[in-house]
Amino acid sequence: MSTDTAHRNGVDTATLFATLDAVKQMPAAAQFQFRAHNEWQSGTHSRSTISDFFGVGEERAHEREFVFDGDHPAVLVGRDNGPTPVEVMLHSLAACLTAGLANIAAARGVTLTEVRSTVTGDIDLNGILGLQPVRNGYQQGACGSSSRGTPRRRSCGRSSSSPGRARRSSTS
Amino acid sequence: MSTDTAHRNGVDTATLFATLDAVKQMPAAAQFQFRAHNEWQSGTHSRSTISDFFGVGEERAHEREFVFDGDHPAVLVGRDNGPTPVEVMLHSLAACLTAGLANIAAARGVTLTEVRSTVTGDIDLNGILGLQPVRNGYQQGACGSSSRGTPRRRSCGRSSSSPGRARRSSTS
Repeated sequence: MSTDTAHRNGVDTATLFATLDAVKQMPAAAQFQFRAHNEWQSGTHSRSTISDFFGVGEERAHEREFVFDGDHPAVLVGRDNGPTPVEVMLHSLAACLTAGLANIAAARGVTLTEVRSTVTGDIDLNGILGLQPVRNGYQQGACGSSSRGTPRRRSCGRSSSSPGRARRSSTS
Repeated sequence: MSTDTAHRNGVDTATLFATLDAVKQMPAAAQFQFRAHNEWQSGTHSRSTISDFFGVGEERAHEREFVFDGDHPAVLVGRDNGPTPVEVMLHSLAACLTAGLANIAAARGVTLTEVRSTVTGDIDLNGILGLQPVRNGYQQGACGSSSRGTPRRRSCGRSSSSPGRARRSSTS
């Protein structure tokens, strides 16, 4: 395997497969605990730090501490010092799907050149405001993405009324 | 109401109550759509931008664009350019609970001086790796927080084996 194919899509596939084999031999290595430490700042503004985690049998730390703010925009009586928590969750979903897509494409020998997606969530805030008997969370969801370099366009869903699912729509 | 109590905990309570009254009169104003736009960088590294959203009947934008990276650490065959998506989700949960706590405390006339929390999630990656028939997501959860300025310490849960719940433990 050439260095080029061993790092297809920036994924170290040799290490990926070696990791899978190692976990097959020692399933307990796959037990992880992740953590976010949060501190209230003022109003709806809080700040999380993410650094330490447990995995492969020991305490570990990221190469650096990641710091993220969360807040509400003015229209939701905040000061817009960060995205809303529900927007952060959409980023989490998008990053999860994209990382998995790149890993699986590399494992299957598919070279990607571009992957873009938009994850959206429709929410009726009457629920969290306690004003109407509607779900306190996203109501409407679907998903979609586009990637270049793959043989076919990939779409993973349409508009759905299932509660709690997020919409992922094509942007390119 | 003095300016001080009108902004208890940094929450503009007068505007908060006025907003609630306005939404009671016009429930459709509470229909929002949030979005995260994601672009793959390399390997498991992707970057999301969060700026535009729909709410109170029109397209809106945050005061600035928020940009967040997601990646895997080296032990999970990434390059640690950002937190993992599952850590981002814990930040989302922590920021949501903390914003709600500050708003509700202000609405009830409780002055906060400090709120800290750690949200943790236990995950068996054998699920997402397809190696064992275990849940592909957090297995173990509980929650807890501490705040100063409130009459009593608040704890919102214990260790639980319910799938998909996150653990929130006291840190101060």
